[in-house]
Amino acid sequence: MTAETPRAQQGAALREHTLDSEMVFRGSFLNISRDLVRLPNGAQAQREYIRHSGAVMIVPLLDNGNVLLERQFRTPMQRVMIEFPAGKLDAGESWLICAQRELREETGYSAQEWAYIGPINNAISYSDEVIHLAFARGLVPGPQALEDNEFLEVFEAAPQQALDWVRTGQITDVKTVIGSFWLEKLLQGTWNFDWQRVPA
Amino acid sequence: MTAETPRAQQGAALREHTLDSEMVFRGSFLNISRDLVRLPNGAQAQREYIRHSGAVMIVPLLDNGNVLLERQFRTPMQRVMIEFPAGKLDAGESWLICAQRELREETGYSAQEWAYIGPINNAISYSDEVIHLAFARGLVPGPQALEDNEFLEVFEAAPQQALDWVRTGQITDVKTVIGSFWLEKLLQGTWNFDWQRVPA
Repeated sequence: MTAETPRAQQGAALREHTLDSEMVFRGSFLNISRDLVRLPNGAQAQREYIRHSGAVMIVPLLDNGNVLLERQFRTPMQRVMIEFPAGKLDAGESWLICAQRELREETGYSAQEWAYIGPINNAISYSDEVIHLAFARGLVPGPQALEDNEFLEVFEAAPQQALDWVRTGQITDVKTVIGSFWLEKLLQGTWNFDWQRVPA
Repeated sequence: MTAETPRAQQGAALREHTLDSEMVFRGSFLNISRDLVRLPNGAQAQREYIRHSGAVMIVPLLDNGNVLLERQFRTPMQRVMIEFPAGKLDAGESWLICAQRELREETGYSAQEWAYIGPINNAISYSDEVIHLAFARGLVPGPQALEDNEFLEVFEAAPQQALDWVRTGQITDVKTVIGSFWLEKLLQGTWNFDWQRVPA
């Protein structure tokens, strides 16, 4: 148990130093680095982790008060998951460009206003993935444009329904759990959302 | 956009069927499967994902109202992260045995009461990991017993502080974000927690 220390010094005794890094697996979807690191006690250790380009998740708020959700079969889980729309960043892409594209492709909707929430990290021991969270409102419908071999169902639910599904375990996807909790904060008006008008 | 359908039929049109599965990478820490799957339209696709043994996270509630948190350097993020105590399940291990062991090893504390929250899935497109969430109270201090080459700092914070760190982006680790939101539900008394007395 350590006492609180000034923020700049916090964790200084925990820091590892990278001595070497090599890509040990290049798959069609996953890439894995293996780093050799020097630990705080001077010992060396290996660290393996996924190199990920990052992702964006969108909580889309309809004018009728509902949110858009999706059902998608996820191979690692071997079941259909309930999720907010999301997608991977292309190299160098901003969260907004990615979010606009994924929302349009997966649901057909464009949004007139966006609020950026911030990044979350979903597998900090074995992936460098960052998922940027954003809210979208002022939704305008349009044609869905799924990629080849992409299969998902879009549906509406009340915010309270999403939160109930978190409570009862029907939503277990972490980004969607966190989006549901932020959604409650938005509706309660207790946390600030910085809405920006954005050309569609 | 689909209308609501009975739960048993939901997502039936989204289901993939596994045709073949092979382990394409066996590292010292990560194992990767590559599956050949048949998509709903009859086409075939490859899916790569990590095979993970699962994990447990504990929100430890001290009698003084604070929670225990940890600072730990995470190689993929290249920075020190704020986290609730957590660890990987051994093969066949129950969430409770794992949670008791990890809490004791990382913080020194044993707990007299446990509440199981449920599973979350943190990387559903590329890992089959399940993280079991649990709360612990009635904490009794003891000696910390970190593994060789394990470095972390344990500290106390008020629940409101943890939630503020979620809001301001100083907590970005998904399991810790979700634990902080559940912690607020516990303190508000709005969600049910099923506390069980457990021999330490």
